[in-house]
Amino acid sequence: MANPIVTLTTDFGLADHYVGVMKGVILSIAPRARIVDISHAAASYSISEGAWLIAQAWPYFPPKTVHVVVVDPGVGTERRAIVAEAAGQYFVAPDNGVLGLVLMREQHTVREISNARYFRQPVSRTFHGRDIFAPAAAHLASGVAVASLGPLLGDYQRGDFEMPRQGDDGVWHGRVLHVDRFGNLVTSFRAADFPDLEEKKFRLTIGNRAIDRFAAVYGGQPVGALFAIGGSSGYLEVSMNRASAAAETGAEPGSVVTLSFE
Amino acid sequence: MANPIVTLTTDFGLADHYVGVMKGVILSIAPRARIVDISHAAASYSISEGAWLIAQAWPYFPPKTVHVVVVDPGVGTERRAIVAEAAGQYFVAPDNGVLGLVLMREQHTVREISNARYFRQPVSRTFHGRDIFAPAAAHLASGVAVASLGPLLGDYQRGDFEMPRQGDDGVWHGRVLHVDRFGNLVTSFRAADFPDLEEKKFRLTIGNRAIDRFAAVYGGQPVGALFAIGGSSGYLEVSMNRASAAAETGAEPGSVVTLSFE
Amino acid sequence: MANPIVTLTTDFGLADHYVGVMKGVILSIAPRARIVDISHAAASYSISEGAWLIAQAWPYFPPKTVHVVVVDPGVGTERRAIVAEAAGQYFVAPDNGVLGLVLMREQHTVREISNARYFRQPVSRTFHGRDIFAPAAAHLASGVAVASLGPLLGDYQRGDFEMPRQGDDGVWHGRVLHVDRFGNLVTSFRAADFPDLEEKKFRLTIGNRAIDRFAAVYGGQPVGALFAIGGSSGYLEVSMNRASAAAETGAEPGSVVTLSFE
Repeated sequence: MANPIVTLTTDFGLADHYVGVMKGVILSIAPRARIVDISHAAASYSISEGAWLIAQAWPYFPPKTVHVVVVDPGVGTERRAIVAEAAGQYFVAPDNGVLGLVLMREQHTVREISNARYFRQPVSRTFHGRDIFAPAAAHLASGVAVASLGPLLGDYQRGDFEMPRQGDDGVWHGRVLHVDRFGNLVTSFRAADFPDLEEKKFRLTIGNRAIDRFAAVYGGQPVGALFAIGGSSGYLEVSMNRASAAAETGAEPGSVVTLSFE
Repeated sequence: MANPIVTLTTDFGLADHYVGVMKGVILSIAPRARIVDISHAAASYSISEGAWLIAQAWPYFPPKTVHVVVVDPGVGTERRAIVAEAAGQYFVAPDNGVLGLVLMREQHTVREISNARYFRQPVSRTFHGRDIFAPAAAHLASGVAVASLGPLLGDYQRGDFEMPRQGDDGVWHGRVLHVDRFGNLVTSFRAADFPDLEEKKFRLTIGNRAIDRFAAVYGGQPVGALFAIGGSSGYLEVSMNRASAAAETGAEPGSVVTLSFE
Repeated sequence: MANPIVTLTTDFGLADHYVGVMKGVILSIAPRARIVDISHAAASYSISEGAWLIAQAWPYFPPKTVHVVVVDPGVGTERRAIVAEAAGQYFVAPDNGVLGLVLMREQHTVREISNARYFRQPVSRTFHGRDIFAPAAAHLASGVAVASLGPLLGDYQRGDFEMPRQGDDGVWHGRVLHVDRFGNLVTSFRAADFPDLEEKKFRLTIGNRAIDRFAAVYGGQPVGALFAIGGSSGYLEVSMNRASAAAETGAEPGSVVTLSFE
């Protein structure tokens, strides 16, 4: 691990000093760490947004990367700190389900982070990002064995992530998972599960809008038209060409999306 | 290239995982790369803002820096990917004019990025920042010869950048190029083209406001006064002391600015 | 200094190219520097916010870290550039009090940065972050002795930071120092000065709200309740569980807070 990578995903925003402080702690322990911000813009206390962000980002990092995910409304309470090992990478987070989308699809082991030797002292009760998660990640990045952090854990939180389901009438029901900066609506329908959308007649509804157009690319689509597209994260998205599908439909994270075929 | 530098300029924002994913891809290919964010706040799809940002930033980087510029509304269509070599640095971008302000003033060569060996596979049709631009930049940064990326190209897009022009009445007509965080209005008048503004009587108009005051520094100017100043980017700016000239004038990017002399 | 750390704290925002340019200047001089953003979201021209941010962040960085702090409404005027040495770290900033909260509590020496050999040439009168502060910091980081930057200075600006004071009636009067992303109200009361708040009956007022509840952690507190808590920065904070105390109280930086005991 000549230049170990540590990534950060939080709901801290970038205006305060909190993220900078975590980086200072990490570099004090692991001077050669390369720190990469995934996002600090998860909505405050939103475990589902933190879960979404890290699940989208981790597959693009090399083996041994240490991902720190801190959306932690329960900081200082009895909730535990955990480290998961999955796909050759490490994930350090509070035990509140924020790693749920990563662990759902990958073989993994989970440990409690309980060895206070790897904490910053004294440990506050309001900022474990600084006092527990950043130091534990930095020690991992600098070569400490994951087993040194604490014992294996079986009863960690899996989170509560609704999968699309098919009604008796054949209609699929899903949700908007995420709205990105461009106003693209990422749905919970995985593109791989509906591979022939380009050839089929389909009807996707969101709010009171119905969409039957599929596009392979954004460019060239008619102005003002909503279309379904296979997004870069592997999910079907509802999008527009150089315009915001979120503004056009009023949809937001959690909005119901249905998908049916003729 | 012991610690090659890769910079990023996009319209992706910092809330989504897109920028973090590009960094993961870069570090997977070029583990020693130093990644520097120029800005991810170009207005969505705004080629002119992307062009402005990279043109202002690149002169401050050392030779061999690789700049990645992704404002790419035509992603996945027939538009090409290009790499330009200028002033000893590299610029990786879609072929849509976003490099126009850089290439306008520097000797350069441009190549098409066509060698799929340096792409991430499979290449999506919606996120070439991840699948083509980041990997091509990382390979360049790790020592791949630029000629390996693809053949020389002559008919690349130069972009559409209006230069100030002088009317028959001697009045110069320009535009607001950019409004910065402080509300400074950067005009398209290059300070070097009007070197004696400090001594001359001049009249600069923007909206229905006329300005005849020149300032060498912000501090000490009277409260509420608009003035012209030689900005740090080499252009004349319209500014105020501890206040926003944009809010005061209502001007925005594209607003007409005139400049005349007695 | 194999991998020297340089931190940046400014009011430049992240939308413009200014921060990227400073990083280019730093890496051109100190190619091995690790650059860490503390925050670029200090309110424009707000010396007190810049002072707050760096004072909160520096204790978490290792010896020899070079902190660059640029909130600089007087750029280009007679105000000086300074470098302070305190607690084994360096602080590079305009001489306008922005280092006041750091220097108030640490033994320190201050020098004027006057050796033009370590400036970027030509020096503009509008962007010393690029032309003086970043280059001076990079030279320090790459091993230049601090004494080379300029002579010792005694009459530097200490800034104007109001300390809590106790009235004749025994009531403590303080201020809101900072409102963070979560709406936590950081007061100027240091937690260490009121160590037994958890056991005592107290009354903290802010606006027309009175608070007598102390919490050790955010979680588990009743919905809608305001409480005092020992914040991660060492100050008493007024907070809510998963909600914004700033929105609930209408308080903002500078708002008066009182604290009294039965």
